[in-house]
Amino acid sequence: MNQTIETILSHRSIRKFTEQAIPQEVLATLIDCARAASSSSNIQCVSVIRITDAKKRELLSEYAGGQGYVASAAEFLVFCADFNRHQQIKPDSRLGFMEQTLIGAVDSALMAQNCLLAAESLGLGGVYIGGLRNNPDKVCELLNLPENVFPMFGMCLGYPDQDPALKPRLPADLILHTDNYQPLDAEKLAEYDATMREYYDIRTGGKLDQSWSDQIKAILSKEARPFIQGSLNKQGFAKK
Amino acid sequence: MNQTIETILSHRSIRKFTEQAIPQEVLATLIDCARAASSSSNIQCVSVIRITDAKKRELLSEYAGGQGYVASAAEFLVFCADFNRHQQIKPDSRLGFMEQTLIGAVDSALMAQNCLLAAESLGLGGVYIGGLRNNPDKVCELLNLPENVFPMFGMCLGYPDQDPALKPRLPADLILHTDNYQPLDAEKLAEYDATMREYYDIRTGGKLDQSWSDQIKAILSKEARPFIQGSLNKQGFAKK
Repeated sequence: MNQTIETILSHRSIRKFTEQAIPQEVLATLIDCARAASSSSNIQCVSVIRITDAKKRELLSEYAGGQGYVASAAEFLVFCADFNRHQQIKPDSRLGFMEQTLIGAVDSALMAQNCLLAAESLGLGGVYIGGLRNNPDKVCELLNLPENVFPMFGMCLGYPDQDPALKPRLPADLILHTDNYQPLDAEKLAEYDATMREYYDIRTGGKLDQSWSDQIKAILSKEARPFIQGSLNKQGFAKK
Repeated sequence: MNQTIETILSHRSIRKFTEQAIPQEVLATLIDCARAASSSSNIQCVSVIRITDAKKRELLSEYAGGQGYVASAAEFLVFCADFNRHQQIKPDSRLGFMEQTLIGAVDSALMAQNCLLAAESLGLGGVYIGGLRNNPDKVCELLNLPENVFPMFGMCLGYPDQDPALKPRLPADLILHTDNYQPLDAEKLAEYDATMREYYDIRTGGKLDQSWSDQIKAILSKEARPFIQGSLNKQGFAKK
């Protein structure tokens, strides 16, 4: 065990922050950490939009489905897949391939995770805001994202004003397979379901009686943002 | 500066490893670190396939375009977007949405980056293998990946037998925008191009005379794995 592993294993999403600002030099370090992540063929197809404008914060909070911490966190960053930079370098770039959407998603996530872990290692907390994908077209318009830029997710950062419990994850032997894909072990799933039921019971003071399987059934009975394909296409992504 | 930030800022991709094995308890810690990453709505749609079979390693090394370290690294992990687990829980799950492909890519990357950083913090090294996407259909077949599972990328891990220089990244002010997307600053790009030219000159003993812009122009003059859309569809992803 070392500080890095301790930081990683202590992760909880933080959604309530004190009013304390993040010093400029700390923010600079977080961005340097983001930049240090691996990048597919060194293509570096990620841009980060830092939102300082209070009105834009309010609107993004609304677009994300009414997540107030998007407006109130010390910092809010939008991680974007960005091939516009490349198109400025090579105007006839061959773009629009699904592969580039995957690279954009993966590289954005690698940078963001470096940024979040660095923040957490310094006593800050944060949370990913996938909810920006509720209204990708509006986010693009608000941030003046040109073609070939797509907002993958946001991230709130600030000094924690809450201390939530660790959320139990699927056990390692359900996640890790050896040499071949292995079907789900029903017994281990049942154990995890019981663990999650207990976690929600404690966290909500008995108000939520839900297993992980219950959650999954609820989520996957609904369409998953069926407009995303269209929004990606509109920005020039995932066309072929 | 702390150990986490130091680890993050010291990242270099390692492609040459000693023959030393990674102890089982270390591997278990790395997987625990992967599991601790954020997950969109706690959906946990990632599986990791650990490849121990030497023949499969050889084939994956070939599928990845002849990257020998895929075969020789102490460990090779394949990070997959996995909604098959969910379909086993809810057979009539609504799947195939592009949004789920994005979640799968992002969540795989968050887990993988936790795993890599934890490894690096312990003196191990590693490299992402996006090259698995050269032959996704063959990878799926080899690892018996069922529908709704897609191999996003691999990762080699082991004890480093090389000590490469840090690769310079795009400067922070080209990556970080404020409130609006900002067009590329030509002067700063020229500086970075000069930095990268020098880096390659030193790294290759004068054999490679190439700027970052040169690299980008070469990459984006070619199609980007145009078969990825088809392979994703075949596995049940990105259909709508």
